[in-house]
Amino acid sequence: MGRPRIKDVAEYAGVSAKTVSNVLNDYEHVSERTRAAVREAIDALGYRVNIAGRQLRRGRTGVVALAVPELDIAYFAELAKHVMAEAERRGRTTLLLETGGRREKELAAVQGFDAQFTDGVILSPLALQPRDLQERDTRLPLVLLGECNLPGSADHVAIDNVAAAREATAHLLARGRRRIAVIGGDLRGGLNTGRLRTVGYEQALTEAGLAASEELVLPVPAFRWADGAAAARALMRLPERPDALLCLNDHLALGAVRSLHEDGWSVPGDVDVVGFDDIEATRYSIPTITSVAPDKPGIARRAVRLLLDRIEADGDGGPAVDETAGHRLVVRESSGG
Amino acid sequence: MGRPRIKDVAEYAGVSAKTVSNVLNDYEHVSERTRAAVREAIDALGYRVNIAGRQLRRGRTGVVALAVPELDIAYFAELAKHVMAEAERRGRTTLLLETGGRREKELAAVQGFDAQFTDGVILSPLALQPRDLQERDTRLPLVLLGECNLPGSADHVAIDNVAAAREATAHLLARGRRRIAVIGGDLRGGLNTGRLRTVGYEQALTEAGLAASEELVLPVPAFRWADGAAAARALMRLPERPDALLCLNDHLALGAVRSLHEDGWSVPGDVDVVGFDDIEATRYSIPTITSVAPDKPGIARRAVRLLLDRIEADGDGGPAVDETAGHRLVVRESSGG
Repeated sequence: MGRPRIKDVAEYAGVSAKTVSNVLNDYEHVSERTRAAVREAIDALGYRVNIAGRQLRRGRTGVVALAVPELDIAYFAELAKHVMAEAERRGRTTLLLETGGRREKELAAVQGFDAQFTDGVILSPLALQPRDLQERDTRLPLVLLGECNLPGSADHVAIDNVAAAREATAHLLARGRRRIAVIGGDLRGGLNTGRLRTVGYEQALTEAGLAASEELVLPVPAFRWADGAAAARALMRLPERPDALLCLNDHLALGAVRSLHEDGWSVPGDVDVVGFDDIEATRYSIPTITSVAPDKPGIARRAVRLLLDRIEADGDGGPAVDETAGHRLVVRESSGG
Repeated sequence: MGRPRIKDVAEYAGVSAKTVSNVLNDYEHVSERTRAAVREAIDALGYRVNIAGRQLRRGRTGVVALAVPELDIAYFAELAKHVMAEAERRGRTTLLLETGGRREKELAAVQGFDAQFTDGVILSPLALQPRDLQERDTRLPLVLLGECNLPGSADHVAIDNVAAAREATAHLLARGRRRIAVIGGDLRGGLNTGRLRTVGYEQALTEAGLAASEELVLPVPAFRWADGAAAARALMRLPERPDALLCLNDHLALGAVRSLHEDGWSVPGDVDVVGFDDIEATRYSIPTITSVAPDKPGIARRAVRLLLDRIEADGDGGPAVDETAGHRLVVRESSGG
């Protein structure tokens, strides 16, 4: 048998070629059962999407770009792996760019680097301003990841950050914690991730009949180990110390656990620690770290599907779409798991 | 004053414009003192290399590609940051590709992805074969990072892996350790990193009058936390257990420390643990991890210089060059620091 074709997959799965195509394009109206049958056929026959010919006919490169703030923040490295795997499953190569969260780099990304090598861009922005997108002089397809102050300007995928922080806080309250601090929190306005997670934290406190205490919400210069270590140390020296630390990413949590250890505090004996992102390191640290796990494969799948749909529609395809990926709290040793 | 130009920098530093140009191009024959004066002038005047015009005139993109095996192995993320910073200092944008250590991806990288978007490629190969480079049908400038079975086929930057492992092993011997195991070691032939580090380990044992024991050199399926955890567990169940674990990267070391903790072993009380790469996490784990620190900025600086020199020479410029970057052992809590 030669290289398997769509009709071979269809025959094996007992469905039509159109249905196979729908599964390959991730259309949502295919039943889970049909989807599974087609995937099984694809695996069994070793079918691979041959996209090169179609690409070339349309003047496309088959390359998508992914731009993230910092590659040594493990969440972005892990998310990038999922985006690459998903893009590859759809026959595309992913090139990655680190922006450092700098506006000039994010601008270059949404402009497609003024080059012709990419069919579209997935960007996790930090510094981009609404007018940067309004003034954009390219129709290059663009998908934004994570929360940002850019509503409605491009397709967008994020988790429900308010709900995620509310659930993490409720978990700590259910353990009897009453002085819960937020490392990386944001008391000001805006739509950024830190603010939305602080809102979720405040909601959980309110639901429990507790008032939020401003001194317990601590912004940080960056979301890295050293920032978490310094913040935890400062918080534990308050006249009324916290009994739990909600850290808005896992690097902050790992840094906090280290400085608590150095200062003789036990986790979770004296203080609970919860992180965000569920990076692989949280499963191997001492103690292991409770963390909010965003559905990274789901984020990647949605982002790639939205981007490829826009590319198919030549950068058009109707108003911007917002999609919400799932999340769950993974309880580990640092909060009694 | 308008945008500063090279002659302004030269005047400020009290040197010729040619000397400024030499410093910008990282030529080695400039004295440290002159280099410092020029850098001070560059900072004081806010001089920025304007490379776009020159690039365009030569049909170049100003983009370099960096291809590494796995972005969520923190060494590669950290190294990528240094390469990007160095390339940016030289006026270039870096696009990153993850190969997964798969030969087809590494092949695509050395071919420049059959696209016109990059002026050259820096690749950290795992699976590439010598004939892949001999059969290469492009003169696209290429620099290889790390040890590989590809001698003489392209410019190449690595640390002295034999010496690094010898020094790490000697450190453990000096602490009185006598049953030192190697996690990720390689007893077979070849020029890969695992083999070279195992050679260094064997040299240190021989110098101390000790024989290497085959059962203590353990290959691993991958260089990730879970592999380190499983290997440590297996080694500690040997009839004669090891008293030190030399782990060939830090993720293996962090995984090993976790499973030792679960099994009730104290680090460094019962067992010393040493890693490789000096990733940021080793400074915040409990305990902190002794690690061989490759000079990552030095590797990045050399790789970018070699690549840009080849690009300037239009892919020519003489026989392939081997450069060795420095390393040092950073002793931390996991081996008594």
